[in-house]
Amino acid sequence: MSSSTTSHGKQFTLYVSAGPNPWKVVIILEELCLAYKTVVVDVNNGENKAPEFTKLNPNGRLPALVDHSNNDFTIWESGAIILYLVGKYDTEHKISFPDFDSTATANQYLMFQMSGQGPYMGQLGWFLRYHHEKIPSAIERYRAETMRIMGVLEKVLEGKQYMVNDKPSYADLAFVPYQWAADWIKPELDGWRDEFPTVAAWSDRLEARDSVKKCKAVRAECGF
Amino acid sequence: MSSSTTSHGKQFTLYVSAGPNPWKVVIILEELCLAYKTVVVDVNNGENKAPEFTKLNPNGRLPALVDHSNNDFTIWESGAIILYLVGKYDTEHKISFPDFDSTATANQYLMFQMSGQGPYMGQLGWFLRYHHEKIPSAIERYRAETMRIMGVLEKVLEGKQYMVNDKPSYADLAFVPYQWAADWIKPELDGWRDEFPTVAAWSDRLEARDSVKKCKAVRAECGF
Repeated sequence: MSSSTTSHGKQFTLYVSAGPNPWKVVIILEELCLAYKTVVVDVNNGENKAPEFTKLNPNGRLPALVDHSNNDFTIWESGAIILYLVGKYDTEHKISFPDFDSTATANQYLMFQMSGQGPYMGQLGWFLRYHHEKIPSAIERYRAETMRIMGVLEKVLEGKQYMVNDKPSYADLAFVPYQWAADWIKPELDGWRDEFPTVAAWSDRLEARDSVKKCKAVRAECGF
Repeated sequence: MSSSTTSHGKQFTLYVSAGPNPWKVVIILEELCLAYKTVVVDVNNGENKAPEFTKLNPNGRLPALVDHSNNDFTIWESGAIILYLVGKYDTEHKISFPDFDSTATANQYLMFQMSGQGPYMGQLGWFLRYHHEKIPSAIERYRAETMRIMGVLEKVLEGKQYMVNDKPSYADLAFVPYQWAADWIKPELDGWRDEFPTVAAWSDRLEARDSVKKCKAVRAECGF
């Protein structure tokens, strides 16, 4: 983590780590062609709990965003950052909606990502990799919840290309980085593509977007 | 669950259950003086997974809201319902904000509720009450995360009465029903009021609002 975050000339500074959440924001920034500098916060060394970072985000989690064109306005929680970016900078509604009801439905799916897909898959990852004892029934709980969530997505996407008005939006894109994890968590999530073919096709459709390809390149440049 | 949801003459039908999430929405409806009928969905009998309900919310969770004054527009995820209600009906900004940046900050805290306070306290409840085996290290994980979240709130609220612009808003109110759980989960969360006095004072301040008192009365009428 470098402290020189305002001298790089880009509009935004985005604080990132290896986990899925920061990369949702990178995808949105890429979609909107906004210029940003990434700053890696080393969570393995506790940088996320150090005052230099918690003054930006008291929750000590990633991502956090600073908008230098708006008096260094600072915001955390990936879902709130997404709402900030599309609300302020997607005035042509490239990945958002001009009408209130469509926006409300997009927010519904964004909240489902934030409260469902993210937390359940996150807990699966925790009990597989970080918990100090192996607890098969906890792993099974979160594996089953993750698959259940994908079953809900299968129903939501039935007969559609994208979640809202069949237009790719921030609602779909918010799910992308955790869908990567569905391929990475083996063998627990093996078979999800066969069981949920509509979700798999939707994931592949999103993967093909330039913003997602660029995000993966930026993530690799960050060492993840 | 009754199917007669459009003949009651109220503007909204709100589907509820015993858990904390539906009551966030009741508080917001009460704040905005909007007329609603509650319909209890019996999750113990699996009504939440039956087609009559999953056609409203494919996730099979509570709450879900139908707005009869907007062509029966249907929305789920408590956080998205809150954004819908304040965006469409709080035009005088009683519990929301007229400016974009304050709204963004309120959304940040709403997302923190949806992705942090809710999921962690929810998992604590799961491992205390519903999991088929007793796993002390899982209980301890979610007890510690719940207390950590309250520590973040203690920092956020330091020197303030309310989260955003020192005005009570949907951001604060979204935390109320899970704060009830902090008092109910004994002995695991004993001592939170001593450890986090600023959070306790904020909780008490919100508890004193008519909307919260009315919400508790409605909850009791629903049999919870």
